[in-house]
Amino acid sequence: MSALDTYLALNSRDLRLELEELYAAYTACLDEERFEEWPEFFVEQCLYKIIPRENFERGLPLATWLCESKGYLADRVTAIRKTAVYAPRYIRRIVSGVRVLGWKEGMLEVRANYVAFETLQDELTRVFNTGQYRDKLVVEEGRLKFKEKLCIFDSLLVPNSLIYPL
Amino acid sequence: MSALDTYLALNSRDLRLELEELYAAYTACLDEERFEEWPEFFVEQCLYKIIPRENFERGLPLATWLCESKGYLADRVTAIRKTAVYAPRYIRRIVSGVRVLGWKEGMLEVRANYVAFETLQDELTRVFNTGQYRDKLVVEEGRLKFKEKLCIFDSLLVPNSLIYPL
Amino acid sequence: MSALDTYLALNSRDLRLELEELYAAYTACLDEERFEEWPEFFVEQCLYKIIPRENFERGLPLATWLCESKGYLADRVTAIRKTAVYAPRYIRRIVSGVRVLGWKEGMLEVRANYVAFETLQDELTRVFNTGQYRDKLVVEEGRLKFKEKLCIFDSLLVPNSLIYPL
Repeated sequence: MSALDTYLALNSRDLRLELEELYAAYTACLDEERFEEWPEFFVEQCLYKIIPRENFERGLPLATWLCESKGYLADRVTAIRKTAVYAPRYIRRIVSGVRVLGWKEGMLEVRANYVAFETLQDELTRVFNTGQYRDKLVVEEGRLKFKEKLCIFDSLLVPNSLIYPL
Repeated sequence: MSALDTYLALNSRDLRLELEELYAAYTACLDEERFEEWPEFFVEQCLYKIIPRENFERGLPLATWLCESKGYLADRVTAIRKTAVYAPRYIRRIVSGVRVLGWKEGMLEVRANYVAFETLQDELTRVFNTGQYRDKLVVEEGRLKFKEKLCIFDSLLVPNSLIYPL
Repeated sequence: MSALDTYLALNSRDLRLELEELYAAYTACLDEERFEEWPEFFVEQCLYKIIPRENFERGLPLATWLCESKGYLADRVTAIRKTAVYAPRYIRRIVSGVRVLGWKEGMLEVRANYVAFETLQDELTRVFNTGQYRDKLVVEEGRLKFKEKLCIFDSLLVPNSLIYPL
């Protein structure tokens, strides 16, 4: 039985738990600033997009972040580590309401809500960004990875620049 | 075996997962503004109440919203769509800490925490409302539906009017 | 089979659900201000610490709260109920992203994100404190209890004094 078959055979409850674990690992990777590990949650040919809800709902293509392959994600990490100039901050992410929409042509469609809180040095923690993940996952190397990840955020305004991934 | 018997036979872990799915579907329905589908989460003879924690704890009956049947819920939706005047906004809801208290006279008692974030046009996202759900569910048409849903919120103040359901 | 063996035999999915239930019960105990029950989540010889992330990451020992046994936790509760002077408030806690790191010498290592929202009388609800739990659990009296609980919070600033546990 292939790895994909194993996943296809999971009942909806086990699949849900599998995804809860995946999102917890994804969140921890980013919250703990292990950015170098972040691209490993994606397959080589992937799409990662952070886009305002208004643009998304109107079908406007303009995105705040757009990465069209795993290489682009790695470039982002290099920017965070080496080139970007920004004030130190902590981001704390919450994922909730995971919904498994089902398999479609070998891809698992999943949606979830996320909230990111930001703490700048010597400042109070505040709401940074809320939105919805619209994800498509495939099985690679025996585990689920993101083929597509859209972060559709509610506010056109973001309190500070978007430095770290969501 | 009746649908109710099927639910009664679920072990606590499967029941918990069933509820996680239900709350995720409920939240998504509201967050995505599919308000017309919202009353379908309730049975005909139901009680939906949004009430300040202080009133609830003191046994004071005054509620901010009170709907005593599915028809009332539908009226609310009509108000949102047709008669209410309000600034455009997005609400993002998080549900956490689901607790299954158990079955009592054919009703399943469940509690959970919720947080609602609000985003007004051209404004930053902020905390809108936090509180506890105290819910009673019954089995109808083969699935769990709300017989009673209390949204007990922590602050007497609400940053803007309560336009959308919680 | 001992209670510990029963837990050791649980597959990762059942263990995860067991922990979701534990954190939901823990959160509800505190949110509903049943503080007298709070020490019962811990074993006698335990460590409970609330510490800023900066101190934790630099290996600095200074903690905001430090309780080195269940007795210390009970002392905290006495302070809340009898000696501390503070404005009335409600705290609402969210736990998300539970990760089971595994068993090590009879202890279960678990991490999770938490967010606490605070509502002072006649004020809006706001973000109070976000951070990560780093917990170690053991089996006592047939159930999981905290042997160690670190609450590592993101902001050096806390909007009001830390009166209630996290």
